[in-house]
Amino acid sequence: MTEEPQYPTSIGTSTRDTISLLGHDVAGDLLGNVTFGELAFWLVAKRRPTPGEGRVFEAVLVSLADHGFTPTAIAARLTYYSAPDSIQGAIAAGLLGGGSRFLGVTEDTGRYLHEIVAGLPAEASGWGDDEWNVVAVEALERAKAEGRRVPGLGHPVHKDGDPRTPVIIRIATEAGTRGPHLSLFEAIGRMQREVLGKNLPLNGAGVGGAALADLGLPVEMLRGFALLARTAGLVGHINEERLNPVGPAIYASVDRNAVYVPPTDEQSREGE
Amino acid sequence: MTEEPQYPTSIGTSTRDTISLLGHDVAGDLLGNVTFGELAFWLVAKRRPTPGEGRVFEAVLVSLADHGFTPTAIAARLTYYSAPDSIQGAIAAGLLGGGSRFLGVTEDTGRYLHEIVAGLPAEASGWGDDEWNVVAVEALERAKAEGRRVPGLGHPVHKDGDPRTPVIIRIATEAGTRGPHLSLFEAIGRMQREVLGKNLPLNGAGVGGAALADLGLPVEMLRGFALLARTAGLVGHINEERLNPVGPAIYASVDRNAVYVPPTDEQSREGE
Amino acid sequence: MTEEPQYPTSIGTSTRDTISLLGHDVAGDLLGNVTFGELAFWLVAKRRPTPGEGRVFEAVLVSLADHGFTPTAIAARLTYYSAPDSIQGAIAAGLLGGGSRFLGVTEDTGRYLHEIVAGLPAEASGWGDDEWNVVAVEALERAKAEGRRVPGLGHPVHKDGDPRTPVIIRIATEAGTRGPHLSLFEAIGRMQREVLGKNLPLNGAGVGGAALADLGLPVEMLRGFALLARTAGLVGHINEERLNPVGPAIYASVDRNAVYVPPTDEQSREGE
Amino acid sequence: MTEEPQYPTSIGTSTRDTISLLGHDVAGDLLGNVTFGELAFWLVAKRRPTPGEGRVFEAVLVSLADHGFTPTAIAARLTYYSAPDSIQGAIAAGLLGGGSRFLGVTEDTGRYLHEIVAGLPAEASGWGDDEWNVVAVEALERAKAEGRRVPGLGHPVHKDGDPRTPVIIRIATEAGTRGPHLSLFEAIGRMQREVLGKNLPLNGAGVGGAALADLGLPVEMLRGFALLARTAGLVGHINEERLNPVGPAIYASVDRNAVYVPPTDEQSREGE
Repeated sequence: MTEEPQYPTSIGTSTRDTISLLGHDVAGDLLGNVTFGELAFWLVAKRRPTPGEGRVFEAVLVSLADHGFTPTAIAARLTYYSAPDSIQGAIAAGLLGGGSRFLGVTEDTGRYLHEIVAGLPAEASGWGDDEWNVVAVEALERAKAEGRRVPGLGHPVHKDGDPRTPVIIRIATEAGTRGPHLSLFEAIGRMQREVLGKNLPLNGAGVGGAALADLGLPVEMLRGFALLARTAGLVGHINEERLNPVGPAIYASVDRNAVYVPPTDEQSREGE
Repeated sequence: MTEEPQYPTSIGTSTRDTISLLGHDVAGDLLGNVTFGELAFWLVAKRRPTPGEGRVFEAVLVSLADHGFTPTAIAARLTYYSAPDSIQGAIAAGLLGGGSRFLGVTEDTGRYLHEIVAGLPAEASGWGDDEWNVVAVEALERAKAEGRRVPGLGHPVHKDGDPRTPVIIRIATEAGTRGPHLSLFEAIGRMQREVLGKNLPLNGAGVGGAALADLGLPVEMLRGFALLARTAGLVGHINEERLNPVGPAIYASVDRNAVYVPPTDEQSREGE
Repeated sequence: MTEEPQYPTSIGTSTRDTISLLGHDVAGDLLGNVTFGELAFWLVAKRRPTPGEGRVFEAVLVSLADHGFTPTAIAARLTYYSAPDSIQGAIAAGLLGGGSRFLGVTEDTGRYLHEIVAGLPAEASGWGDDEWNVVAVEALERAKAEGRRVPGLGHPVHKDGDPRTPVIIRIATEAGTRGPHLSLFEAIGRMQREVLGKNLPLNGAGVGGAALADLGLPVEMLRGFALLARTAGLVGHINEERLNPVGPAIYASVDRNAVYVPPTDEQSREGE
Repeated sequence: MTEEPQYPTSIGTSTRDTISLLGHDVAGDLLGNVTFGELAFWLVAKRRPTPGEGRVFEAVLVSLADHGFTPTAIAARLTYYSAPDSIQGAIAAGLLGGGSRFLGVTEDTGRYLHEIVAGLPAEASGWGDDEWNVVAVEALERAKAEGRRVPGLGHPVHKDGDPRTPVIIRIATEAGTRGPHLSLFEAIGRMQREVLGKNLPLNGAGVGGAALADLGLPVEMLRGFALLARTAGLVGHINEERLNPVGPAIYASVDRNAVYVPPTDEQSREGE
């Protein structure tokens, strides 16, 4: 028999008399002194946000919390309708749609910008619009040549501009957290029409990703923050579904318009 | 063919130029003016919390966000280790353990107290400790007679008292939100040892449930708030697992200590 | 430091040269000699099914595998649409609706019948229709008096009788596995109209639960088998969604028919 | 208001009197005449498997159903321990680990082989070992030059050869379904040591992927079949956890060996 391994963590521990979180006494230091949003930042960054950072972080979470009847909200509502005893299952079902297509823009934009920013010289922090425009044009042209989409551009509904975009930039500027990721993303916003030949304004999910990356949060975790924000929206949707359900009508509408189509030869041979 | 049904919601809508949430303009009214915690309250209560309510709500979320290596945190870490590309899957796996045994105390306590409070006369809002003690003793004796556990009592580690308990009560009192649920729960805390014959102090998860119920939040959704709080903790655990994994060591420890035991007759006939 | 605990299991172990499952050599004994359905039975019952038991078990799984555009299939398709990289997430989202309302009938019926059967005398195994009718009438009258629904009765579409019902009963009879659960359920089917005053024929999910309970499988795991069966259906739905998606049209239909309704006072005070 | 869209499907439909699946009457044609494994194949391939195909498919599912205390099985058990009322949540948590690292080998191997096979001339179906060896050496050298791992090679435990490998190949050969994917994979098995310089025998999950690809199943869905197989194993684990739990001991072992480590500067700045 072997001795048990040890499991290191910097998050939480407790003794008979104390609960410690991130090296602080939960009861004495944290409760009432830190907002939930600030704690969420702290749990990942492993340092307390400054008031300005906290303000930007909360604003981005608020901007991502809900977008109405998205596929993920519908999936959560249908799951609640099928299994009302298990709210955790309905929330989990909603979060599981948080992948590349719908909830991934925040992370994708943060990662994309971070890759470029990481290769810039130290003096980039002092650059003005002209220098950033040059970097943006290079990045846009590279993406165009490779046939790759630049994440965070365009929105299916807000075709003339996402109303969240200027507000998040303003909050970050006021809070003093506007850094290279937002500077580059704004430059991309200025230059995209010229390079790409159609107008694809910066969307709010992308700006949120840029703003979070400027806070020094790891870009690998940006999807995690988007999922946290969306959890609040899902709890709201599930509560509505409890009081005033739409799941049964959605199900009935789909079921009544189902049309049986015999499998084609192509389908049954597909993969051969 | 039928006309499409309508799907009512009071959460969010958007047009080409605006995004509306809870009847407010997200960009103009909400971003920067409401914390993420306040928005989470609002999404369910369908009204903005007062500053005092917001303070209590945030404190309870903070108190529920993490408890170290719980089974749910371990499940999330093992899932991340198995499928690192899908952070949403790891968070979902962690939330799925948020059922009756571990994360249910907040909801169970809120529901339990609410059932009793709903049957009290209107003047209960003016009662002092003596009146609440009478109600508490009745409730405890009923539970004892029926062999039912009173939710929110006792803690496997904090046997002499959960350090979060007095702090949450103090914050609710200062914020002016302390109402019948907390009053009853505190009375249960005073009388439990006498009636039940052993010391089972009020635990923090139960106090959190009582404090949320006093905010007028529907007790059916308290588990949802506990899950939201826990999501922040899970994002923190997954980030640690990314940087400094323990999943492989946990897996190896379990695998190396697996012992094959032939099925007993009882097992193979069980259910007949 | 403590020594590591041991973790007993009767399922699987492996060495450098062998993989053992349920005490048998996977490569030498099981592959090619047992169907997947038989193995699924074996993994829970901890004994190999007889050929007759295997036939009944496979038939019940086939009967439960798919029911078209159920809420769970829609949730899985919407999740795949949102996060196409993570098939496991789409399957998980579909399974999470497998709770009390839609997928629970099999388990509920098995549990309900098992509770009654467990209280019958040993000679019940030799009873004829008349004796079973008496037990069924008692059970139906008790449920009626208590205002409880008898699980497994009625179907929203197959109002004159579920076409699967007589076939499953015939297969169980031919296989020699028809026992007290099916006998009692058939008697309930004969007597329900007389006692309840309306025609609620035995549905297929309920008959499946009765047939599985007669195989000696633990009634606590019947939902697990229903979920296993449904997994095959979900894999089929996700493959269709990949080739010929309906998720985008469902999302668009819901989104375009969303109607903003201001929260009522009742909603915003609900829970107080 | 718009007319409702239509939702095509080739899976299932039902009327008052019939349930139709894949264009067949469930009650009259399928129940008792098709195994669950055959139906799972049919639901994706949209054609009934031949007896030989069915035999290979069932054998591969059996080979993938369980591997003891994997991280996914542990996650499912811990979730069941935390939320025993929701079996669907425990199964879902287990499946969510079915991503790239543990359950992805079957899919990855099938995709890898399919990419190469798709580029071969028509006469490849008649090739002998020598021709396949040439293709295999080319593929292995390309992977080596690019620093890419060839999926399906090597196993952490079965270092001298996975016992399932020769059995699955034999079953496919006997059933007459051995085609280009298996032929290529066997050639890779023969040539890998020479090209890569160390012995990495074909593992069973990879051989399963090759065998399924030879059945004409779409390689994009191979992970789906691996997840279906694993669902049976998870149901078995959850049943064991119900009767003879290990979750509490795993939790206690991890919790008792948790060590608080203050966050390093690197961690708290990581991402900047």
